[in-house]
Amino acid sequence: MGIITDNGLVYNPVDDVDLGPHSDQIYLHADVKAPRMAGLIAKVFVWFLEMKLIGNVLVYFLKKNNRIQKLVSYGVMEDEPLYVPLHPYEEEDTEKEEVKSLCPDMSPAEQVQHAIDCLQSPDAKLQDSHFSFRRWKIMDYSRAYSSGQITPLVVAERLISAVVQSSDPGTDMSFFISYDARDILRQATESTLRYQRGEQISVLDGVPIAVKDEIDCSPYPTTGGSTWLHKVRPCKGDACCVKRLRSCGAILVGKTNMHELGAGTSGINPHYGASRNPYNPKRISGGSSSGSAAVVCAGLCPVALGVDGGGSVRMPAALCGVVGLKPSYGRIPHSGVLPLNWTVGMVGVLAGTVEDSLIVYAAIGGQPEQHQSTVPRLKLPILKHSNMSSIKLAKYDEWFSDCSDDIRSRCLKAIASLQKLYGWETVEVTIPDIEVMRLAHYVTIGSECTASIAHHLENKCRSESGWDVRVALSIYGSFDSRDYLNAQRIRNRQMRFHEKIFSMADVIVSPTVGVTAYEIKDDAQETGELDYVNGAALVRYSIAGNFLGLPAVTVPIGYDRIGLPIGIQFIGKPWSEAKLIQIAYAMEALCEAEYKKPQVFYDLLGEC
Amino acid sequence: MGIITDNGLVYNPVDDVDLGPHSDQIYLHADVKAPRMAGLIAKVFVWFLEMKLIGNVLVYFLKKNNRIQKLVSYGVMEDEPLYVPLHPYEEEDTEKEEVKSLCPDMSPAEQVQHAIDCLQSPDAKLQDSHFSFRRWKIMDYSRAYSSGQITPLVVAERLISAVVQSSDPGTDMSFFISYDARDILRQATESTLRYQRGEQISVLDGVPIAVKDEIDCSPYPTTGGSTWLHKVRPCKGDACCVKRLRSCGAILVGKTNMHELGAGTSGINPHYGASRNPYNPKRISGGSSSGSAAVVCAGLCPVALGVDGGGSVRMPAALCGVVGLKPSYGRIPHSGVLPLNWTVGMVGVLAGTVEDSLIVYAAIGGQPEQHQSTVPRLKLPILKHSNMSSIKLAKYDEWFSDCSDDIRSRCLKAIASLQKLYGWETVEVTIPDIEVMRLAHYVTIGSECTASIAHHLENKCRSESGWDVRVALSIYGSFDSRDYLNAQRIRNRQMRFHEKIFSMADVIVSPTVGVTAYEIKDDAQETGELDYVNGAALVRYSIAGNFLGLPAVTVPIGYDRIGLPIGIQFIGKPWSEAKLIQIAYAMEALCEAEYKKPQVFYDLLGEC
Repeated sequence: MGIITDNGLVYNPVDDVDLGPHSDQIYLHADVKAPRMAGLIAKVFVWFLEMKLIGNVLVYFLKKNNRIQKLVSYGVMEDEPLYVPLHPYEEEDTEKEEVKSLCPDMSPAEQVQHAIDCLQSPDAKLQDSHFSFRRWKIMDYSRAYSSGQITPLVVAERLISAVVQSSDPGTDMSFFISYDARDILRQATESTLRYQRGEQISVLDGVPIAVKDEIDCSPYPTTGGSTWLHKVRPCKGDACCVKRLRSCGAILVGKTNMHELGAGTSGINPHYGASRNPYNPKRISGGSSSGSAAVVCAGLCPVALGVDGGGSVRMPAALCGVVGLKPSYGRIPHSGVLPLNWTVGMVGVLAGTVEDSLIVYAAIGGQPEQHQSTVPRLKLPILKHSNMSSIKLAKYDEWFSDCSDDIRSRCLKAIASLQKLYGWETVEVTIPDIEVMRLAHYVTIGSECTASIAHHLENKCRSESGWDVRVALSIYGSFDSRDYLNAQRIRNRQMRFHEKIFSMADVIVSPTVGVTAYEIKDDAQETGELDYVNGAALVRYSIAGNFLGLPAVTVPIGYDRIGLPIGIQFIGKPWSEAKLIQIAYAMEALCEAEYKKPQVFYDLLGEC
Repeated sequence: MGIITDNGLVYNPVDDVDLGPHSDQIYLHADVKAPRMAGLIAKVFVWFLEMKLIGNVLVYFLKKNNRIQKLVSYGVMEDEPLYVPLHPYEEEDTEKEEVKSLCPDMSPAEQVQHAIDCLQSPDAKLQDSHFSFRRWKIMDYSRAYSSGQITPLVVAERLISAVVQSSDPGTDMSFFISYDARDILRQATESTLRYQRGEQISVLDGVPIAVKDEIDCSPYPTTGGSTWLHKVRPCKGDACCVKRLRSCGAILVGKTNMHELGAGTSGINPHYGASRNPYNPKRISGGSSSGSAAVVCAGLCPVALGVDGGGSVRMPAALCGVVGLKPSYGRIPHSGVLPLNWTVGMVGVLAGTVEDSLIVYAAIGGQPEQHQSTVPRLKLPILKHSNMSSIKLAKYDEWFSDCSDDIRSRCLKAIASLQKLYGWETVEVTIPDIEVMRLAHYVTIGSECTASIAHHLENKCRSESGWDVRVALSIYGSFDSRDYLNAQRIRNRQMRFHEKIFSMADVIVSPTVGVTAYEIKDDAQETGELDYVNGAALVRYSIAGNFLGLPAVTVPIGYDRIGLPIGIQFIGKPWSEAKLIQIAYAMEALCEAEYKKPQVFYDLLGEC
């Protein structure tokens, strides 16, 4: 922070700010004054907000003297805007690191094979008897298929019946927005024939993978969780990442539910149902990649794809107790993903295990066609628990502690065991202006969403949207170009702060979210819900991953006192996915023995 | 263009647009409805505009259904935003081209020496007797100093007395905002001593160079043409480009007049006087680098620095009959230039001859400190008239012809002589949406200017500004983030259109401006002037250079029927400055015999 004037905040130059543990930088708690709104109140609010003149006046007063105005729009700083968080890279000396660097011209299946070569000896962990609960992994599927114990077709049939079962009124999990049993069975039949001929393409052959309904995947429309977006933007084929999975033989099993337009964190979708948390179906799965987290949690797929524009992969992953990996901006080709924004959203992987997140990362990662020179080679870590080189974890105490007691104590315990078992160090730091970054990111994602879809909203599509989304869209549309540009200047400041932090430590460690899965209230299901307090607590730790394009991963480490999952997050330097996956693997190894089975769980391989 | 709907324009995909001469793309003429305003009317208009509520309503109606709204804000297109016009480069095979590629670690003086090696044999042109008028060049100064015919000190004294003379009420040329005779004489004395010791640093040693008051240059404040900017942003030393010139021994002779905040094209500055055109002091010199063009025109300096954010180097160069070179975005380090915008402004060179623009380009060009990997090596052309390889000139007829008759016919004649003497070809093309690009650029520069300086304006600085600038600032501040982002999407479209044009031709040729220097009216001098019709005609050909970061050069080619200069512009591919300078040199050779002496001219070397 800097000097507060009548108008706004005068920021100190980046180089003058102390990033040490005793810095005079103030940690600003989220200051959300908006009350929770749902049901009729939300409708009335939207009704006012969308009136031409009164709406403008209302937004004017909402914006006046609020923190976005004081800290972002009217913030005074020397920094230039940084518009796109694509990091220049230098080829590092990889001799010392235990990574594989892949040639850029490999096929996805070849990349997957290299990932397999990076795994521990295949059966090292499988037989461990001390697991109270373990999800089936990609390698489990692959082995079961290869050995003929079960066929992809049988798995597909079980999956379809599980989805049907999960959709009945009593359960109503709302996992999927669309799935097509015939298409699934067709893929499964083809895969089964490949195994019969001994011509399986890769370990992903026949493995069911679900895709967030923000990513194009034939033969489904891409709704983005809305009732209209697919009508104005027809899906023309697989997104690049889906194409890569398909080329590895994976079975694409449908489009998972999501928060409408990704414009929220709860995963409560008034059109397609509230995505329920398999650990407690009365509670949210988190969003916006809600269905993708829930299907992995519930055992329907070992992995699913999500999109993370403001923690949207990591938040639901943490709430559902699965692994969420969001690579660096530019690492996974973005073509075929709904253009709800341009500079903060990235495809990510939700998986039951770190191992599976690595395999799918290898399948879909690489150099996008048009950015050959701007993106480094894909690197894969060699996974092992022993001999992990010493890691320095940067920890900002006030930020780290801004969460529920259960989360804080569980995360601290996890760090303590990393220190004890691996000898890793913790470096106490101060990361300035984290709340400012959250607001600047909000201005950015809101502005970009508006510019991308506003022309549709003029054509009656707005009235088809959920009430919470309509409020969001009204706020999104209220930002002026000065708000946006100053947000990009804050992006530049934050990038430099984080570069300095990464000169002191390998990764930043934090909880993934500030609260565990909260209850779905009755009045929220029809209208959606405005709950900015819980929303702020959910996104609190996510922003650097999106606004700065940094890779980040969340690993489940345990449960709160009522059995809801808790995740820990590691944020890495640009392009440091390999190290990040290694760290996540080490973390997982210390916790997986305590993993618990969700209330809603389907065992697709169980009887084979 | 595409389909016009109730709301806005639906653009066709770039690849579907025909860029050939018979394309169905409509050339949209600038449609400026605003009447010229100055004096009392301008004041009243500002008074309304700056009122909180009424101003907002006024801007609302000004924006409603205007072209910015229809073509930019509400434009519908698939394209992603492109925020910064920094082009990825591939090292071309330079064997065939006649260029020198410089190592990145050279000093400015070494780079200048390489530029000298690129010139024709030193005396090849000097003695040509068929010139009716020729300005002294850098090499003339250098030779005169080296041979002892004259000293830098004598030149400096003559310059100071010329500036004094030009400032008296009868002439009132308003060349400079600040100059310090003592500082000039001190530099000149040092240079003189260096020549006496035979230790001159480079051919620029002792050469007077003026700098636009938008670029930091000790010991002067950097006003940006305002009365307050230097107070809130003190100049802390030389800008990088000035430092480079100083390290070559050049004498920095002061800060030239400019349109206030660069927010206009006339060069009429209510605080520091209207920069007058040396060819006709009743007329404008053009802006915003008005003084820099005028001092070169009037013989006070062989070269001057300007900044070109929307043609601001090329327009005054054309109106004053001098050469204006605006290199690619990123080619000249920008540090120490007022941050009036971030993505469209670039330092440029105004010079009496193409040769001198090359020498100064060599001195200040190079790899900025922080962008090592993003900017290619500096390349210098070997100047010669013969053996110039065949060049293809792209020409868009409707756009080319959208200017005064005199300009059109003179430019066509120039092209005809290029075809005849050098055998160059003309390729007729269509460049779509040029007017849309102008509007998108206006949104961009306005938004960036607002984000950069708005916080100062809240503190009474607004009321110190000229009335025309206050109108501009009100409009600049009215853009929302959707306007800005859609403008960046148009930037992307235009980049792709231009890439396609450059696959058909080496350069784009056009007039530099649509009108020659117009009269300075009495009522404009105190308040400034709002003349969007003339303004649109002036910037018509400039925008691609700024919005797309393309290099461009203007060369004087003759005069209209009342003796006012006319320029022709060549726009090149990214990083093609070397070829562009060669082309300009070839063009100049065909026209320089007809150059005329301005009414106001000072002959600093004449009697030596």
